[in-house]
Amino acid sequence: MAKDNKFVKDITSMDVDFAKWYTDVVRKAELIEYSNVKGCMVIRPYGFAIWEKIKASLDRRFKETGHENVYMPMFIPESLLQKEKDHVEGFAPEVAWVTHGGNEKLQERLCVRPTSETLFCDHYANIIHSYRDLPKLYNQWCSVVRWEKTTRPFLRSSEFLWQEGHTAHATAEEAREETQRMLNVYADFCYEDLAIPVIKGQKTDKEKFAGAEETYTIESLMHDGKALQSGTSHYFGDGFAKAFDIQYADKDGQLKYVHQTSWGVSTRLLGAVIMVHGDDNGLVLPPNIAPIQCVIVPIAQHKEGVLEKANELYESLKKEFSVKLDDSDKSPGWKFSEHEMKGVPVRIEIGPKDIEVGQVILARRDNHEKITADINNVAEALKDTLAKMQADMLERAKENRAAHTFAAKTMDELKEIADSNNGFIKAMWCGDLECEEKIKEEAGLTSRCMPFEQEEITDTCVCCGKKAKALVYWGKAY
Amino acid sequence: MAKDNKFVKDITSMDVDFAKWYTDVVRKAELIEYSNVKGCMVIRPYGFAIWEKIKASLDRRFKETGHENVYMPMFIPESLLQKEKDHVEGFAPEVAWVTHGGNEKLQERLCVRPTSETLFCDHYANIIHSYRDLPKLYNQWCSVVRWEKTTRPFLRSSEFLWQEGHTAHATAEEAREETQRMLNVYADFCYEDLAIPVIKGQKTDKEKFAGAEETYTIESLMHDGKALQSGTSHYFGDGFAKAFDIQYADKDGQLKYVHQTSWGVSTRLLGAVIMVHGDDNGLVLPPNIAPIQCVIVPIAQHKEGVLEKANELYESLKKEFSVKLDDSDKSPGWKFSEHEMKGVPVRIEIGPKDIEVGQVILARRDNHEKITADINNVAEALKDTLAKMQADMLERAKENRAAHTFAAKTMDELKEIADSNNGFIKAMWCGDLECEEKIKEEAGLTSRCMPFEQEEITDTCVCCGKKAKALVYWGKAY
Repeated sequence: MAKDNKFVKDITSMDVDFAKWYTDVVRKAELIEYSNVKGCMVIRPYGFAIWEKIKASLDRRFKETGHENVYMPMFIPESLLQKEKDHVEGFAPEVAWVTHGGNEKLQERLCVRPTSETLFCDHYANIIHSYRDLPKLYNQWCSVVRWEKTTRPFLRSSEFLWQEGHTAHATAEEAREETQRMLNVYADFCYEDLAIPVIKGQKTDKEKFAGAEETYTIESLMHDGKALQSGTSHYFGDGFAKAFDIQYADKDGQLKYVHQTSWGVSTRLLGAVIMVHGDDNGLVLPPNIAPIQCVIVPIAQHKEGVLEKANELYESLKKEFSVKLDDSDKSPGWKFSEHEMKGVPVRIEIGPKDIEVGQVILARRDNHEKITADINNVAEALKDTLAKMQADMLERAKENRAAHTFAAKTMDELKEIADSNNGFIKAMWCGDLECEEKIKEEAGLTSRCMPFEQEEITDTCVCCGKKAKALVYWGKAY
Repeated sequence: MAKDNKFVKDITSMDVDFAKWYTDVVRKAELIEYSNVKGCMVIRPYGFAIWEKIKASLDRRFKETGHENVYMPMFIPESLLQKEKDHVEGFAPEVAWVTHGGNEKLQERLCVRPTSETLFCDHYANIIHSYRDLPKLYNQWCSVVRWEKTTRPFLRSSEFLWQEGHTAHATAEEAREETQRMLNVYADFCYEDLAIPVIKGQKTDKEKFAGAEETYTIESLMHDGKALQSGTSHYFGDGFAKAFDIQYADKDGQLKYVHQTSWGVSTRLLGAVIMVHGDDNGLVLPPNIAPIQCVIVPIAQHKEGVLEKANELYESLKKEFSVKLDDSDKSPGWKFSEHEMKGVPVRIEIGPKDIEVGQVILARRDNHEKITADINNVAEALKDTLAKMQADMLERAKENRAAHTFAAKTMDELKEIADSNNGFIKAMWCGDLECEEKIKEEAGLTSRCMPFEQEEITDTCVCCGKKAKALVYWGKAY
């Protein structure tokens, strides 16, 4: 077969080198291309189409929970960034500074937003006056910049796309509820659309967001057993409100500070999808976020009636599904491999013999199962197959996570498990920063979260032996 | 009536001060709020919701014509910006420069993208190899930065939102076709969704885009007779391809340069909607882009059965329309004024008397017409009313444009018309820059475009009397 007629996979096996496999898939599936701008990536059409699917589902969920989209400036004057002490300390070391506009030096330098708390606060101080103005439930889709030395597609780059919700409430209680509500929106989205199970929990003080009183997180486990922080939700109390003077006149006539939250997910979620579901043939996309849910590949398409029938099938399916008919002049083998690499959930094969006996073949991307369907009933078979695949992918991800979740009662046990495995390690913690740092130093593990579903493995800290305060999920993280 | 019970309009009349009226409407309708970041604005939820409507319609049109969305870095290294001579000359004086990342000075400074031709070209040079890779039809939704001394909401600001299409083609002919195709997409969108008639034409060399061989434009006329450049489409030939070395192996085995285009519209379109359709009561939104197409206002809502019936109506309409039920504790008068200010196309009034006789009142925002509709048949009446309003708004905009379009045969005539009127002035031009500059100097007019639909007013240039090359639309522009 001519070279032109064979799609060359040439990606590293995930068992040989998972990191290399990851970047191979990212590039070979045409999700991202490197650019000549240090630390920045080009998100190519196929990668961006997945992001658009993710965005659409999340945006619908945000709007259903009463949130509105806005757009804030991309620049933050230095004096504004400095208003909240912890916040500026956390972010100043990693921002990009604009010092000149055209040929003139600016009187005050501006940073490109690394996150927009300060801008939202500044705006809220302008527009919130009365209890009638509350709550404010705003969200923004945009790109942010955090200067990074080392970069990895979707996981770590100087510029990335995300959404950031910023809300202001009359009471601490309402703000806390919002923090939980949005963490649940994220978790539901991961389960339902990404087919990724997540652990919901609270970050330790060491790991929380700069300026937050409490940070909540969803943590997922990649195929290689490493953890990925997949979304966070922060409770600010009235700290920012005091720094930015955001007060409202309550029903009782008193001036009170608002209570705030923020929450965000980013294009990192694409990294999670790749690393949870991918295999040695490339990407495997959950049907709910696949830009192409089904590709129709005609077999022996030069034979009479094949393309015609394939076209009929395409026309009948395209109203209900995202479907593509690949009638290019590449060989079927090339088309199979190419669409496998791109993770298209279902391939429909239709050839002269199939047409003769009135059937088509549906091939699932995830488990390579082949299903024979009546040619007059393909829509139903496809619908069932996509639903089953979506459910099976979640189940397999759960199984993989269960197989990579361990428990440790002593420091020796913790180190031993960490030495020989990647995965979540459950172990008790006394709450002291010192122990957290020691576990990082000696076992190479960071605290992922204190899960909402607490268990009591022992009643003492795995590190110091003092009374335990909480169960913690520990792990090696991206 | 208590102060709290009356919505205070307090906007300047458009006849008294159009510019002041504009900014009053922008702020009172809660489209934009000023920020503490010089030259940058906050787009508030209602303004952003209109932009989302605009974006959705355009994005659908782009995808229907085969375009794919991508995301490029927001930074351009100085050396990359400098690759195309005319382009850098046009943009360098107005870009924001990033010189520091965190605490370190950058080796090469980066500008925040004012437009992304250079980034797309750099990417195209990487991914285009063969005629099989062509055409590339990419689009990007993002924000761009051009340092501005004076700013005006939506019309001129240092940062603004837009889309930029960038395409690469095998031949000049195909690229030229694309330039026209996208100008037509813009024009159709303006007519069909914004209810704004536009003049399609070509820019003079003086007014064309930095680096383009030809620039095409759609020009619209505001209520005050000033022109607004509303969208542009550029043909680059192979100029950028040569500067960035974007070559492909053609079918004949020869290496050839691609031919390119770019095209864009921005949040300026919101400015156009405000200034074409607005009135002294505020915004008037064409139904096709209104975030709320219809607001239901219960009258005497404390009376038994009113809210219940209003709710029923809301439930029955919300599947088909963007509808809001305003059952807040404000007075009906407040609600009327508030939703008029926000330009909601149709208000439905429903009170005890209406319910008694089985009817509701539909009030049109544009001409204040009131329509009585059977309470069991509101959906159909609403559908008709919205369609009629959309069509009438376009008609009125056409009439206003006709009333503000003039023709001049001599320089004296041109100056006289320009002195006493705002509007489009049609006059012949010899094609010389000198005459174009003289007309600007003496009559305060810029060339808006050489319309595709040419007429021959005279056969000599209005300025120098030499043989005319083209009819030009002249005007005072935003």
